Amino acid sequence: MGKSKNKKTAARPRKPKLIFRFGEKTDGDGTQTSLLGGKGANLAEMARIGLPVPPGFTLTTEVYNLYHENGRTLPDDLYRDVRDSVGALEAQTGRRFGDAGNPLLLSVRSGARSSMPGMMDTILNLGLNDETVQGLARETGDSRFARDCYRRFIQMYGDVVMGVRPNDDHSEDPFDEILGEARTRAGVDTDADLDAEALDELIGKYKTLIKRITGLPFPQDVWEQLREAIGSVFASWESERAVVYRRKYNIPRQWGTAVNVQAMVFGNRGNRSGTGVAFTRNPATGEKSLYGEYLLNAQGEDVVAGIRTPKAIAELAKDMPAVHRQLEKLSRKLERHFRDLQDFEFTIEDDRLHMLQTRNGKRTGLAAVKVATDMVKERLINSTTALMRIPADSISTLLTPVFGRDGVRNVKVIATGLPAGPGAASGKIVFSSREAERLGRKGEKVILCRHETSPEDIHGMLAAEGILTARGGVSSHAALVARQLGKVCVAGASGIQIDYAKREMRADDVRLKEGDTISIDGTSGEVFEGELDTEPSEVIQVIRGKGDPAASGPYQAFNRVMRWSDRARRLGVRANADTPEQAREAVALGAEGIGLCRTEHMFFHEKRLEYVREMILAPSAGVRERALKRLAKFQRSDFVELLRTLDNLPLTVRLLDPPLHEFLPAHDTPDGTLAARLGLSNQALAQRLRDLHEQNPMLGHRGCRLGITFPEITEMQARALFEAVVTVRKEYGLKPKPEVMIPLVGFPGEFRHQAEIVRRIAAEIGKQAGLNLECPIGTMIEIPRAAIVAEELARDASFFSFGTNDLTQTTLGMSRDDSATFLAPYEKLDIIARNPFATLDTAGVGFLVEMAVKRGRKGRSDLKLGICGEHGGDPDSIRFFHRIGLDYVSCAPHRIPVARLAAAQAALEDSSTARDSG
Amino acid sequence: MGKSKNKKTAARPRKPKLIFRFGEKTDGDGTQTSLLGGKGANLAEMARIGLPVPPGFTLTTEVYNLYHENGRTLPDDLYRDVRDSVGALEAQTGRRFGDAGNPLLLSVRSGARSSMPGMMDTILNLGLNDETVQGLARETGDSRFARDCYRRFIQMYGDVVMGVRPNDDHSEDPFDEILGEARTRAGVDTDADLDAEALDELIGKYKTLIKRITGLPFPQDVWEQLREAIGSVFASWESERAVVYRRKYNIPRQWGTAVNVQAMVFGNRGNRSGTGVAFTRNPATGEKSLYGEYLLNAQGEDVVAGIRTPKAIAELAKDMPAVHRQLEKLSRKLERHFRDLQDFEFTIEDDRLHMLQTRNGKRTGLAAVKVATDMVKERLINSTTALMRIPADSISTLLTPVFGRDGVRNVKVIATGLPAGPGAASGKIVFSSREAERLGRKGEKVILCRHETSPEDIHGMLAAEGILTARGGVSSHAALVARQLGKVCVAGASGIQIDYAKREMRADDVRLKEGDTISIDGTSGEVFEGELDTEPSEVIQVIRGKGDPAASGPYQAFNRVMRWSDRARRLGVRANADTPEQAREAVALGAEGIGLCRTEHMFFHEKRLEYVREMILAPSAGVRERALKRLAKFQRSDFVELLRTLDNLPLTVRLLDPPLHEFLPAHDTPDGTLAARLGLSNQALAQRLRDLHEQNPMLGHRGCRLGITFPEITEMQARALFEAVVTVRKEYGLKPKPEVMIPLVGFPGEFRHQAEIVRRIAAEIGKQAGLNLECPIGTMIEIPRAAIVAEELARDASFFSFGTNDLTQTTLGMSRDDSATFLAPYEKLDIIARNPFATLDTAGVGFLVEMAVKRGRKGRSDLKLGICGEHGGDPDSIRFFHRIGLDYVSCAPHRIPVARLAAAQAALEDSSTARDSG
Repeated sequence: MGKSKNKKTAARPRKPKLIFRFGEKTDGDGTQTSLLGGKGANLAEMARIGLPVPPGFTLTTEVYNLYHENGRTLPDDLYRDVRDSVGALEAQTGRRFGDAGNPLLLSVRSGARSSMPGMMDTILNLGLNDETVQGLARETGDSRFARDCYRRFIQMYGDVVMGVRPNDDHSEDPFDEILGEARTRAGVDTDADLDAEALDELIGKYKTLIKRITGLPFPQDVWEQLREAIGSVFASWESERAVVYRRKYNIPRQWGTAVNVQAMVFGNRGNRSGTGVAFTRNPATGEKSLYGEYLLNAQGEDVVAGIRTPKAIAELAKDMPAVHRQLEKLSRKLERHFRDLQDFEFTIEDDRLHMLQTRNGKRTGLAAVKVATDMVKERLINSTTALMRIPADSISTLLTPVFGRDGVRNVKVIATGLPAGPGAASGKIVFSSREAERLGRKGEKVILCRHETSPEDIHGMLAAEGILTARGGVSSHAALVARQLGKVCVAGASGIQIDYAKREMRADDVRLKEGDTISIDGTSGEVFEGELDTEPSEVIQVIRGKGDPAASGPYQAFNRVMRWSDRARRLGVRANADTPEQAREAVALGAEGIGLCRTEHMFFHEKRLEYVREMILAPSAGVRERALKRLAKFQRSDFVELLRTLDNLPLTVRLLDPPLHEFLPAHDTPDGTLAARLGLSNQALAQRLRDLHEQNPMLGHRGCRLGITFPEITEMQARALFEAVVTVRKEYGLKPKPEVMIPLVGFPGEFRHQAEIVRRIAAEIGKQAGLNLECPIGTMIEIPRAAIVAEELARDASFFSFGTNDLTQTTLGMSRDDSATFLAPYEKLDIIARNPFATLDTAGVGFLVEMAVKRGRKGRSDLKLGICGEHGGDPDSIRFFHRIGLDYVSCAPHRIPVARLAAAQAALEDSSTARDSG
Repeated sequence: MGKSKNKKTAARPRKPKLIFRFGEKTDGDGTQTSLLGGKGANLAEMARIGLPVPPGFTLTTEVYNLYHENGRTLPDDLYRDVRDSVGALEAQTGRRFGDAGNPLLLSVRSGARSSMPGMMDTILNLGLNDETVQGLARETGDSRFARDCYRRFIQMYGDVVMGVRPNDDHSEDPFDEILGEARTRAGVDTDADLDAEALDELIGKYKTLIKRITGLPFPQDVWEQLREAIGSVFASWESERAVVYRRKYNIPRQWGTAVNVQAMVFGNRGNRSGTGVAFTRNPATGEKSLYGEYLLNAQGEDVVAGIRTPKAIAELAKDMPAVHRQLEKLSRKLERHFRDLQDFEFTIEDDRLHMLQTRNGKRTGLAAVKVATDMVKERLINSTTALMRIPADSISTLLTPVFGRDGVRNVKVIATGLPAGPGAASGKIVFSSREAERLGRKGEKVILCRHETSPEDIHGMLAAEGILTARGGVSSHAALVARQLGKVCVAGASGIQIDYAKREMRADDVRLKEGDTISIDGTSGEVFEGELDTEPSEVIQVIRGKGDPAASGPYQAFNRVMRWSDRARRLGVRANADTPEQAREAVALGAEGIGLCRTEHMFFHEKRLEYVREMILAPSAGVRERALKRLAKFQRSDFVELLRTLDNLPLTVRLLDPPLHEFLPAHDTPDGTLAARLGLSNQALAQRLRDLHEQNPMLGHRGCRLGITFPEITEMQARALFEAVVTVRKEYGLKPKPEVMIPLVGFPGEFRHQAEIVRRIAAEIGKQAGLNLECPIGTMIEIPRAAIVAEELARDASFFSFGTNDLTQTTLGMSRDDSATFLAPYEKLDIIARNPFATLDTAGVGFLVEMAVKRGRKGRSDLKLGICGEHGGDPDSIRFFHRIGLDYVSCAPHRIPVARLAAAQAALEDSSTARDSG
C-alpha cells in the first residue's frame, strides 16, 4: 500500500547498526558505553584520539539481546556481517583469517557497560589450527612462539567454549596440570622456557584432554571457532559469578554485554615483546605516578592471572626505555582525555606499543578520595564530579583502624607481599571460598588464603575479612577484586607455600593450619602470625586532636570531601550515640546532633545493672522507689555530660526500649545475692524470672509497653533528663536542645500516655527551676501499625523517627538474629536482591515509611522526620530517604562521614546540576 | 439587623426541647431512645398505650452534653425548666415538692440509649427531709413507713451523691453495717421488722456517718437534693464500671445518658404493697410464661440488690390474685406491642399496680434462640428480625458441653440455687473480683463466689468461668449480668455461707477454701464439690446422630436459625480442621470445606514425631530420605481420609509452617536414643539442637522459609497430597478439590519457588496416573510485606487466605503469647478497645487486609479471598470481612454456626432489607 518505488525518497526502516568498527575507520566513540560496552566504547575513543589500537570491531549489547532471543545462537544474517567485518580486518592487516600462509589471529573479549573485571570470558589467539599454526611459525620465523600461541588458544577455548575446567575450588585446572607436568619433564621453571618440541607434545595432550572430557575434537574450522567464541562470551553474562557480581553491584541483567573482536598483537614474541597492565595513578593509594606491572614475552592473561609474578612498571625504564617513555606520555594523554584514573592494558610486540583497553580504574577508598581531591586541585574535574566519583562507603576506609606500630613490634612478620588492598585484618586462615562462606555466615572472621584467586572465589572473598595470595601482582584478580570490594588484601606474598590438600601453609619456617589466626596489613603488605592490636587511623587521630591537620594529607582530603558534601546535601546527619565519648567522636565526624540516644545502654554498667534488676524485680514499692532513685542519679549525670558534649546541638533521648529480661540473669540460674538484696527467697526469685521469660521478646513487653505498665520508669527517665537540662542551663550557661522519643508506639493512646508523663515532669521541674522546659516529644515508627495510623500520631507527636531495624523485622516477619539460616539461600535463589537489614527493602518496608511520611505530614504539616535504624548509614538507603523527603538520617558515629557524602550524592543526583561537568 | 418584630412570622431559632413529660400528657414515644434513653422512651410509650405509669419527665441525652460542657453542672435556665416540670407533677399528683403537709417524693434514675443494667445510679424517695418525713407520716398515717423511706433515701443519696461507700471489695457498705447493728440491737431478722423508733435512731446515725466522712451535713433543701441527684446520675455515665461496660459492649461515650424524674409510688407501704421484676418469657431458657420475682413491703432496689431473697412471681397468684391476673394481661400487652421479650419493673401500692420500666430483656443464648424462633412461629416477627435478634456468639451456647449426668451421680451436690445462667463451669474458688482478675490473667479458671455481686464486680465477672452467689434471685445483679455476658451462674444458693475474712465458705458441712475447685451447673442450679466431666450438648449429640432430631427442641431451633442464616449470607464458611474427626464435625456443623488444614498437626503423633526429628536432624541425605518416605506414607493416608470425609468439598492444605524446633526435644536435654538412631554423638546432637534454637521463633525459620531451604519437605507434602487425590479419585470415585496454600510468604519469589515445586509434583504424579491434577495454589497473607506486594503475588497465586493471627502479631509487633502482661492494662487505660487477637484491629491490621484485597484483585480479577485466622469465628470481625468483600471465612469447627449466623447478620445489615420488619 503506497510503497514508494523511488529508493532515494523512500523512508525504509533502517536496520539498527549492530557492529561498530574501530581502527583505520572508527564508527563509535567513548560516550556509547551502553551500546558498545565500556571496552568497545573506549577502544573506539582511543582510536579516535590517535592512540595505537589494533583494529577490530564491536558486537553491540543489542546483539546480545538478539543472541538471547534467538535461542542463544547468533542469527545467520548477523553472522554474515561478522564475516564482512573480519574481511575489513584482513584488508587493514594484510593477513587472512584461517589462511595457512599469513594467518590473521583474533581476540574475542566481553565488554559490559559497567566494568566487571574478571567476571566474564576472553579468548586470545583465535584462528589457530593445525595448519595456521604452521603458517604463523613460518611467517614469524619463530616456531616456538607459534606453538605457544596455539597451546594458549586451545586452553582458553577448551575452558571458555568447551567447558573443560576444574570441578571445584580444590582441584587444579586440568590444562595447568598438564602444563606443570611438561615443565617438570623438560626440567624448566617457566612456560617461556618450554621449547617448540615440548609445546607440540603439550598441544597434543591438550587436544586429547578435550576429547576425553567433552567427547568432541578441538575444532579446526576457524569460522566455527569464531562463532562459538562469540556465543560463549555472550553466555558468560549469565555465569554464576557474573550473576553474583551483578547482584552485589546492582547491575541489571537486561544491560547485557557487548563482544569485541580484535586483531591480535603478540606480547609473547620474544624478549622485545611483552604485555602489561598500568594505572595512570596508584589505585591503592591514589599517588600520582604511573603504576602497574608487565611481563616480557607473555600474553595478556599471564599478568592478570598471577601465574608468573610480573615486574613493576618502573623496571621497564631499564628493559625498554623508549617504550617506557612512550607509556608515560600515553598515560598523561589518557588522563587528560578521560579526566579520571585510567586502568589500561598494553602489549609490546617487537618494541612497538599497542593499547588494548582502557577504563576508569577501580580504586580503594583511600585512592578514590585522594584522586578525586587531587584532580580538583589539578582542575581536571570540579568538586561535584569529585563527590560523585567517591563511592560513599569508601570514605569509611579513611576511618578504619590500622595495625598499631607498637603491636607490630612484638609479633613476627612471616611474609611480605604487595599491598593490594589497604587496611588491617585479622582472622582465621581458610583455604577455600566455601569454608570462608561457611564460617563467615556464623559471624567468624576469616582470611582467605589462596595461591591465587579466580572469579569463582567471589563468594569467599565477600565473606572474608581479608585476602592473602601467594602469587600474582597488584593487578591480579585478587588485588583487583579486593580493591573494589574494599577488602584488605596482600597479594603475591611469595614467601608462602600453601598445601590445599593438607590444609596448611608454611611461611618463614612457621607452619599454620586452617583455623589458625593471622593478620595481614594491606597498607604495608606484611603478614603476621596471630592477632594484632589495632589503633585509630590517621584521620581519626587528627580528628581526636593528635597530630597536625595541615600536615596530614589524608585528613586534608577527607576534610575537603566532607566540606563539599555538606554544601551539597539537603538531609541532616545525626548520630546514634549513648555516651559522651561516642557523642564527642560523632560531633568531630560532623554529626549535627544525636538522633538516637539509647538510654538503656546507660544501664549496662555492672553497678547500675544491680539497680535495674532491683527495679524490675522489686517485691515492694519501697524497693522499687529506692532502685529508681539510684538509677535516676546515674542517668542524670550521664545526661549532663552528653548535653555538655553536644553544646547546643539536639539530643534525642529514647525512653527505655528493650525487653526487661535483657537486664536479668539467665532465668534458670538466679543469683543468691540478688535474692538476698531483694528480700526474696531463691525460689521466689526463680519464679519471678521465669514469669518474665518471653517466647518472642522482640514482640513482647518492651518499648513504650514498659513505660505504660511501669510509668515510674518513664517518670524517672524524664526527671533525670530535665534535671540535667536545668543543670547545664544554669551551671554551664548552655542552651541544650533535648527531644524525647517514645519507642515501639503502635496505638495513638500509647503515645499520649507517655507524652503526658513527660510533659508533666517537664512542667513540674520547670516550675521548680523557673525555666520553660517544654521540648519536642516524638515517636519512633518501627511497627507497621504506627505507619498506618501516622496521621493520628502526628497530631500529637512533633517528630517521627523511623526505627527501620524493627520495622524491617515486623514488616518482613523476620528476626534479624534468626534470619541467617534462610537469608543466605534467599540471596542465592534470587528471592531477595540484598540483605534487607543492611539496605532498606524499599518495596516493602520503604512503602510503609513513605506512607507514614505522607500521612504524618497530613496530620502535622511541620512534622520533623528522621530515621535512626542502621539503614541511616547505608548509601543506597540514604538515597531513598532523601527522595521521600526525610529531614535527617541518624547513624553510628563511624558512619557519619559516609552518610554526609551519600546524602550529598543523593542531592546531586536529584538535581539537574548533577551532570558530570568535569 | 432586620430583626422582625412580628412574632407570628419571625423564624426564631427554637430552643431544642430538652425535657419531655410523660403521664396525663406525654411528649415522647418509644422510638426516641437516642434522645430519651431506653427507659424514658419506653415510659413514654407505656403511658401512650394506657399502661399505669406514674407521671414524670425525662431530661434528654442532649442535657447530658450541656451538663458536661457546663463544667458538670446543670445550666441555670435548664434548672428553671426542671422546676416547671416538677410543678406539673405537683399539679397531676396533688402533692407539693418539699411541702411538709403533703410532700411529693421523686425517683431520679439514669436511662442510657442502650440498657446498661446496674451500671449507673438511681435515687428513690427524693424530697424527704426532717420536715417532709413528718408530713409523709401524717399523710399516710404510717410513721414507720415514712421513716423507712427516709432512711433508704439518706443511704442512696449518701452513696450516690456524697460518695459514702465501701472502700474496696472486702469491706461492707458502711450504711449496711449500721443497719445490721440496728437489727441486732432490735433483735429482728429483716429491715421490715424495725420499728419507727429504731428507724429514727438509724436515721440519726446515718446522718452522723455522712457528716463524719464527707464533713458535710445531709442536705435538707429538697431542690438542692434534686439538682445534686440529677448531676450525680449524669456523672455516673463516667464511672469506672460504666466505662468498662461501655467498652465491652462498644457503646460510644458520646451517647451520654438521659435522666428520668418520676413521682414515687411505694411498694414499702405494708403488706398490700410490694415491688417486683418480671420477664414476659423466661430469660434463661426462653420458655413462654410470665417469669420473675417480687417482694411484699419493699422498694425496687430490694429485689435487684439481692438483700432479701424474693418470691417467684407465681406465688403472687396466691398473695394477690387480682394483681397477678392484671400482671399477666399487661405482660401479653407489652409483648404484642414491643414484639420482643420484655423485662419490666412494677410496684404495687395498696393493691394498685404501677409500671416503672420496660425494656427488651437480656437473655441467654439459649433463650435468644428459642424466643426468636418461637416468635417467628407466633408470627410476631419475621425470620430476618429473628436473625438480627440473636447475638451471633450466643448460638455457641447450644454447642458448649454440659455436665454429664454420669459424672453428676458420683459427686456431691453441696448446694442448689437459681439456674441464672445456663451451662457448666468448673474452677477454683475465689472470693473477690480482684483475685478473679489476677488468676484469670494467668489463664486459670475460677468461679467467683460472693454473697451477692455489685456493679463493682464487673471485672471479676468478666474474668471468671462462672458466678455463684449466696443471695439474690434471677433478677439480681449477678443473674442479670451473667446472662448478658454469657457466663454460667447459680444465684441465691442460700445453703452457702461465705466468710470473706477467712477466705472460705461452708456448704452442707463441707468447708471450702479459696483455691479449692467447685463446679456449678447454671442449667440445673446445682453446686458440686470438685471438677466434673462434661459431655456434648444436646444439639451436638443430635448432630452426631445420637437422638431424634425431630424430638429435640434445641436442635430444631438451632437448625431453623442456621437455615435462615444460610439463606441470608454471602460469605462462605469453611473450617480450620486437621483430622478426619474434626472435618466430619465441621461438615455436620455446616462447613463448606476446609479452609485451613495445618499439615504439621499430622506430625505430632509420637511415632511420626520420631521421623520428623530424623528429617530435621538428619546428618546425611540418606537418613533424611528415609524419614521423609515414612512421613509421606502417614501424610498420604491422612489426606485420603480427609478427602473421603469431605466428599467433594474443597480441602485447603497449608504446607509445613511452624519453626522446626517445635518438633524437637528441649535443646539442652538431647535424647540418647535419638542420637543413636541418627548415628550422631550426644554432643553433636546437642550442638545441632542448640544451632536450631531461635531468639524469636515467630519471626524465624518457618513457613515457606522451611520449604525453600528444605525443598524435599515441600516435595514430600505435595507428593502425599496428590497421591491421595489419585487414590480417592480412582478407588472411591470422588472428585476431590485440593487447594495448596504456601505459608508466610513475603516475597513473590518465595511463592514462585514453592508453587513451582507443587506444580511439578502434581504434573509428575498426574502423568503417572493419567489424570490432570492441576489445582489452585494460593498464598497466606500473614506478614505486612505480603499485603504490600499483593498485586504481584496475585499474578502468581490463585487465592489469598489471610492469616490474621500472624498478621496481627507482625502488624502490631506484638506476640500473642507474651501480650497478656500489657494488653490487660492497655484495655483498662483505654489504649486499645478490644483484644486484637480476638477481634480484628480494623484500623491497623484491617487496613492491610483491605489493601491486600484491592491490590490482589488488581493483579488477578478472579482472585479468591478467604481468612483463616481465629478472627474467622468472631462476629465483629466477620462483619468487617463481609464489608471488604472476602469470599469466605474459615474458623474452628465449633465456631462454624457462629460464623454462619454472623455472616448472615453482616449481609442483612448491609442490605436495605435489613430493617426490622417484625
